[in-house]
Amino acid sequence: MSQVLLVAYESRPDAVELAGVTKQELNSLGIETEIAVIGEATLKPQLTPESIVVSLGGDGTFLRAARFAHSATATVMGVNLGRVGFLVPAQPSEIVSQVTSCRAGAVLVEDRLVLDVRLSDGTHDIAINEVVVERSQAGHMVRLRTFIGGDEFLTYSADGVLVATPTGSTGYNFSAGGPVMATNLTNMVMTPIAPHFTVDRSIVVSGSTEISMSVLDRPGLVVADGMRLGSIEPGEDLTICSHGTPIRVALPQNSKFGERLRHSLREGHA
Amino acid sequence: MSQVLLVAYESRPDAVELAGVTKQELNSLGIETEIAVIGEATLKPQLTPESIVVSLGGDGTFLRAARFAHSATATVMGVNLGRVGFLVPAQPSEIVSQVTSCRAGAVLVEDRLVLDVRLSDGTHDIAINEVVVERSQAGHMVRLRTFIGGDEFLTYSADGVLVATPTGSTGYNFSAGGPVMATNLTNMVMTPIAPHFTVDRSIVVSGSTEISMSVLDRPGLVVADGMRLGSIEPGEDLTICSHGTPIRVALPQNSKFGERLRHSLREGHA
Amino acid sequence: MSQVLLVAYESRPDAVELAGVTKQELNSLGIETEIAVIGEATLKPQLTPESIVVSLGGDGTFLRAARFAHSATATVMGVNLGRVGFLVPAQPSEIVSQVTSCRAGAVLVEDRLVLDVRLSDGTHDIAINEVVVERSQAGHMVRLRTFIGGDEFLTYSADGVLVATPTGSTGYNFSAGGPVMATNLTNMVMTPIAPHFTVDRSIVVSGSTEISMSVLDRPGLVVADGMRLGSIEPGEDLTICSHGTPIRVALPQNSKFGERLRHSLREGHA
Amino acid sequence: MSQVLLVAYESRPDAVELAGVTKQELNSLGIETEIAVIGEATLKPQLTPESIVVSLGGDGTFLRAARFAHSATATVMGVNLGRVGFLVPAQPSEIVSQVTSCRAGAVLVEDRLVLDVRLSDGTHDIAINEVVVERSQAGHMVRLRTFIGGDEFLTYSADGVLVATPTGSTGYNFSAGGPVMATNLTNMVMTPIAPHFTVDRSIVVSGSTEISMSVLDRPGLVVADGMRLGSIEPGEDLTICSHGTPIRVALPQNSKFGERLRHSLREGHA
Repeated sequence: MSQVLLVAYESRPDAVELAGVTKQELNSLGIETEIAVIGEATLKPQLTPESIVVSLGGDGTFLRAARFAHSATATVMGVNLGRVGFLVPAQPSEIVSQVTSCRAGAVLVEDRLVLDVRLSDGTHDIAINEVVVERSQAGHMVRLRTFIGGDEFLTYSADGVLVATPTGSTGYNFSAGGPVMATNLTNMVMTPIAPHFTVDRSIVVSGSTEISMSVLDRPGLVVADGMRLGSIEPGEDLTICSHGTPIRVALPQNSKFGERLRHSLREGHA
Repeated sequence: MSQVLLVAYESRPDAVELAGVTKQELNSLGIETEIAVIGEATLKPQLTPESIVVSLGGDGTFLRAARFAHSATATVMGVNLGRVGFLVPAQPSEIVSQVTSCRAGAVLVEDRLVLDVRLSDGTHDIAINEVVVERSQAGHMVRLRTFIGGDEFLTYSADGVLVATPTGSTGYNFSAGGPVMATNLTNMVMTPIAPHFTVDRSIVVSGSTEISMSVLDRPGLVVADGMRLGSIEPGEDLTICSHGTPIRVALPQNSKFGERLRHSLREGHA
Repeated sequence: MSQVLLVAYESRPDAVELAGVTKQELNSLGIETEIAVIGEATLKPQLTPESIVVSLGGDGTFLRAARFAHSATATVMGVNLGRVGFLVPAQPSEIVSQVTSCRAGAVLVEDRLVLDVRLSDGTHDIAINEVVVERSQAGHMVRLRTFIGGDEFLTYSADGVLVATPTGSTGYNFSAGGPVMATNLTNMVMTPIAPHFTVDRSIVVSGSTEISMSVLDRPGLVVADGMRLGSIEPGEDLTICSHGTPIRVALPQNSKFGERLRHSLREGHA
Repeated sequence: MSQVLLVAYESRPDAVELAGVTKQELNSLGIETEIAVIGEATLKPQLTPESIVVSLGGDGTFLRAARFAHSATATVMGVNLGRVGFLVPAQPSEIVSQVTSCRAGAVLVEDRLVLDVRLSDGTHDIAINEVVVERSQAGHMVRLRTFIGGDEFLTYSADGVLVATPTGSTGYNFSAGGPVMATNLTNMVMTPIAPHFTVDRSIVVSGSTEISMSVLDRPGLVVADGMRLGSIEPGEDLTICSHGTPIRVALPQNSKFGERLRHSLREGHA
């Protein structure tokens, strides 16, 4: 029942070391702190709704940390150690001050939409950023029928089709040409990835709408937050809606969205 | 204080004729009906919140009809006579039945976000579809600084930047690469038009956010729903937010968004 | 040393049957004809520069047939049995007349650029449509440095980067947002697939330019014409230039590019 | 019959001053030099094929200087004084050394394709960068039929359609989503600007192909290199092909295309 959980990837020694130093600092302030190192072993951190989960790394670490937090309705906070860290605006030097501010209720905590994903074989998971149904084989497109609120929408021959949250809108969705969505919106966006002879626009829908997809001809891989969740065969489907519980994200006070976007775009052309 | 107002463009004799025939039919059912022909003269139709404004034409007629309706919180209904009629799903043969169903409360009436636009010179108007700030001269881009909720966003050198409603998302916004938005969302989308050396993604924000723009170097024309509203000079600005009163749109029961989009896209490649 | 080689996929019984019927027809005209059925076994058809290779299927069959033809500087001709058959404009009823016209020198034969692909591990192949370096794992982008004529170009974090021929420009390149190129051009086009925070424009270069790519961090799969060719690890690279021998493609006299493109785009929104 | 012509815009005092200083420097080296200040008056500089025209300014100045040079088959050289100067890679400090190197035959001079534009009313001009047919009125799209080599291509409802040279491919064409083309190619690219319900891909064709366009319903403005050339009414058309005489562009030895593109893209997100 730790008050603070520091999350780092085993493959990032700098993050693991930072976790150790930060744990000592927080302990010295009387804040019970544990470390979760993501590696081979399966982690089941013990958290309460009052816990703060701190991600030390890039966007990949943040997604793992956010999943831990979501399962306990705890709060997640991102600290940027990565080259690209769009989701994780705080700097390493700010960790202790951000944690204590957060515990004092002095930082903005934003409730953000999480996706609920169900495959027809019973597989069930959440996604903080996005769910993708993608081709299962190099060199062969997947053919996907899409439905929005039960109404048939476009059928795509594509590398894949994704559904993203506002949090994930600057991730894979952005790469695939989708719009940025303000993180306080309770919307989802569906975006095709390299669709062939079909319009490539995204569609933005309410979080209360159900999106479903099925495949024609060949199976499609289902990937949630960059991790493989399963696959759907012809005749099966996938449904996506908003999860009843949002993810609670602590935002540094000096976080400027426009500035971070400009920074990331300049970095992209370095 | 007509119960039904039929709106047609003077330049469309088929629409004007259809208005005459329809008026007789509705009168014979005891429904007080007037016709507004859009041409040179300024029209000030007398409407009540119970009135139904029927647009007979394409998307341009619909926008004019919707403005009439909005000023009286009346309901607008679109009938498609145009080549492209994405906003106006009903067919001419359905007018009388749709009007009587609407009066009986038997059709879905959707409240949709309307934009409120203010220029720093005091000019003030609404937009049903979109507001554009665009270059004022052939061959010269406009340079536009954009602000979202007071936070500085990107600066564009472009043909223009638009802010669209969900209703307008399939219009100019779509042409410029922006996403489709479900019409029941209370969001706005900002999309650059042919931006030079800047990312071309749209951003979707809440209707409770204020978007503002100012120009560098050269003036920008301000166009709302395809009609010129004014211009902004360097030092002036434009602010856009959601209007307090939505527009009430009556939807035919058989209206299928996905089907209409596929139809329009096939037509686009005829 | 067949004069005509009919190529069909084992998995397409209609194509295999059509091959049989067509062979009889051509034989009865005194034209020596063989059938190559693509399946498990490796085929090494015997061809001369005077041979005509006829693809019976969709774009996938055409690519296989074109590779057979290219190895003998024979001529390839596409017959469309597929749902999408952009590369294969002739209709089944026209096969015999097209073959006899081609033998009489009465159809246009277009010489088209073919890619020559070399991996630093010595792997070497051609591509009729395109070469792709793509991510090797679901959920993880590949980071690719690109070089054009020895000059460093952009570094992409993306699903992949492709280099296409004019023939392939309406294939994967088109899906990824790349331009259509007239098939008589001796150019190559490089197009990123879902690049993150980097501009997504294509670059068109002369066939006499060498394009090379290397990966950072993670390996990239190399896929040529939809078939896996190999992979490159960090430190290795891939070079692409135009092959000394073009592919000779027989074009039906009534082939209209604009019409085929409009048809394919309407089909894409059916 | 000046050996060097320095071109500057009247509205850029820094460029005019630089022209004065540079003229003195070149005169002191025995190089006959004149200055052309672009303003109200029409300029008819006297040039020979051996002349070097030096553009002092941004891309707009370069296009004017290139037109002077083209009319006499002289060589043009760009010096970057502008905020955006993609076409003009040399720096002000390098002018004299670049001019003397150029006269000594020690810099690369690239022959680049120029467009020849003819309207059906007899108007005739060239374009160094691009020709655009665009809407003539704010708020109303233009409908354009396009033909490539006499074959009907797509019909666009759009803000406009442009045809660009390789030199112009990083200008308006790039903003509208078109590909970059290596400047040594003798190709043209056609790109629609904000097309409605039609695919937005570019098409690249040989310089020996003729492109033509006509308008439906409403007139279209014709703009060449950012200057209004005329307009076409329904029933009239516009034809574009490559001009017999290329423009000769002197390239600084340290000019790196990839580096300049990355620089411009970072600047675009400053």
